[in-house]
Amino acid sequence: MGQVNRIILDRARSNVALIPELARHLIGSGGKRLRPMLTIAAAKLCGYDGDGHVQLAASVEFMHTATLLHDDVVDESDLRRGKTTARLLWGNEASVLVGDYLLGQAFKMMVDVGSLGALRILSDAAVIIAEGEVMQLGTAKNTETTEDDYLAVIDAKTAALFAAAAEVGGVIANRPKSETAALRSYGRNLGLAFQLVDDALDYSGEPSMLGKSVGDDFREGKITLPVVLGYRRGNERERAFWQRTLQDGEIREDDLAEAIALMQKHHALSDTMERARHYGAIARDALAIFPDGDAKAALLQAIEFSVERPF
Amino acid sequence: MGQVNRIILDRARSNVALIPELARHLIGSGGKRLRPMLTIAAAKLCGYDGDGHVQLAASVEFMHTATLLHDDVVDESDLRRGKTTARLLWGNEASVLVGDYLLGQAFKMMVDVGSLGALRILSDAAVIIAEGEVMQLGTAKNTETTEDDYLAVIDAKTAALFAAAAEVGGVIANRPKSETAALRSYGRNLGLAFQLVDDALDYSGEPSMLGKSVGDDFREGKITLPVVLGYRRGNERERAFWQRTLQDGEIREDDLAEAIALMQKHHALSDTMERARHYGAIARDALAIFPDGDAKAALLQAIEFSVERPF
Repeated sequence: MGQVNRIILDRARSNVALIPELARHLIGSGGKRLRPMLTIAAAKLCGYDGDGHVQLAASVEFMHTATLLHDDVVDESDLRRGKTTARLLWGNEASVLVGDYLLGQAFKMMVDVGSLGALRILSDAAVIIAEGEVMQLGTAKNTETTEDDYLAVIDAKTAALFAAAAEVGGVIANRPKSETAALRSYGRNLGLAFQLVDDALDYSGEPSMLGKSVGDDFREGKITLPVVLGYRRGNERERAFWQRTLQDGEIREDDLAEAIALMQKHHALSDTMERARHYGAIARDALAIFPDGDAKAALLQAIEFSVERPF
Repeated sequence: MGQVNRIILDRARSNVALIPELARHLIGSGGKRLRPMLTIAAAKLCGYDGDGHVQLAASVEFMHTATLLHDDVVDESDLRRGKTTARLLWGNEASVLVGDYLLGQAFKMMVDVGSLGALRILSDAAVIIAEGEVMQLGTAKNTETTEDDYLAVIDAKTAALFAAAAEVGGVIANRPKSETAALRSYGRNLGLAFQLVDDALDYSGEPSMLGKSVGDDFREGKITLPVVLGYRRGNERERAFWQRTLQDGEIREDDLAEAIALMQKHHALSDTMERARHYGAIARDALAIFPDGDAKAALLQAIEFSVERPF
């Protein structure tokens, strides 16, 4: 991972000073580096002994960083990883364009590795992630969103990159389909679990640990599983509350506290965590065909971390 | 080009309805399709007889379309190709995300073609284009911008894609470096000429032909060559005018007319066109090593069109 971090910082360079400044603001602010770790550990698990996995891992992190920059513009977010967002410091324009730059660098690094198989998987993921983000615009403020609609969104916007990150580790090691498919399934289900926990933490997390405020999703009218469950399990009066706040965007001072209270009443947060554990269990089983060892332990630990994390 | 158009429309499809709607609004509104034509004609010129050039050409147009969507968000533009911009119709969020989708599709199509050489050239271009766009943020509103600064911006944001579009035509035909370098030089200089003319037309074009208003660059404080020349050739009073309008953004009702009058007084628009003809001449000479024929005629015609066009 040290090598991955060096490549990440190196590839964020540019003669155009604003680019490294803005890119490092986000990259240097210590993300979890969970996605690139999947690529490294999956390659190790498959006995890969080249160095292409390091560049692919850095590509994966750049794709993720590009998405974050664009997400913050789309969501008008003010805080990310405990810091003021790039878009507030340098403007939406710079965030959009530096995101494009990082996405371009991601593809350049993949091309350097030269594996058409890995390129196919990661370019497919880029398309699916963007589709997921657009899909999410469609579910925003719509309290009729079903759990399946929600799953389709997070499958695309989050799980697709986790799946690709793990799969490419097996693909550059030239492993058979049975193993690359297992890695893909592991990554996908881990991604679903990760996003479910993220969406629960947005209502239940500790702000100092989260690096962002509680209730951001609520204020943006984002329809996540805690809301889907709270709305569907609620009575008439409660549904009117969700419609007023999320659909009509009429949010008053005590509404976030009321939203959390309703979620607790209907076990919406604990059941969201329960769903996350379900996908975590599938991810764990997907790895069963691989021999035990450090790499497998790291991948299993990523599941524990994703499901149990406080941030 | 019929095949290119079919692939473009086909690849703008998605189950997420907003994507084809928004993409087709821009793609269907009849751009010049100049960049993909360069790829097709360059491949033909090099005797290529496969069908990868069609997909590469469509990739090039998608890269361009993605840039336009993001540009309109960055510039807050209201009109593009004679139509209300996508960002006004569907919002900035959708424009950013559908741009990302098209960029992802562009890479997917390149991967399908399977030429690592072409992938390298086009992913390099993606990075350089984004760098150029960020560089342009830095020159905006800065009246001290030199002609060299301006050239560095348009070399990156415009000429890089023209250069890549022409070069990949030779690369998939497996032609020697001497020919691919000639195509690259042709494309680059054509791109410089094209952008110079674009920047002159922004002050001198006929709105009904342009598909956008005259003076957009002026209102946005964009420092293009007509401004660079007008400012540098102007007297104290005139420079104060450019500083007030472009640097400080204090624009009054008759200022656009005054700006155009100052440009005419100093031949800033006609000399911008003269510079364009200079790069057009270099582009023409770059093609001299190739045999005459339909493909070469099409590439030469692209120079004529770019320099003489009224829109």
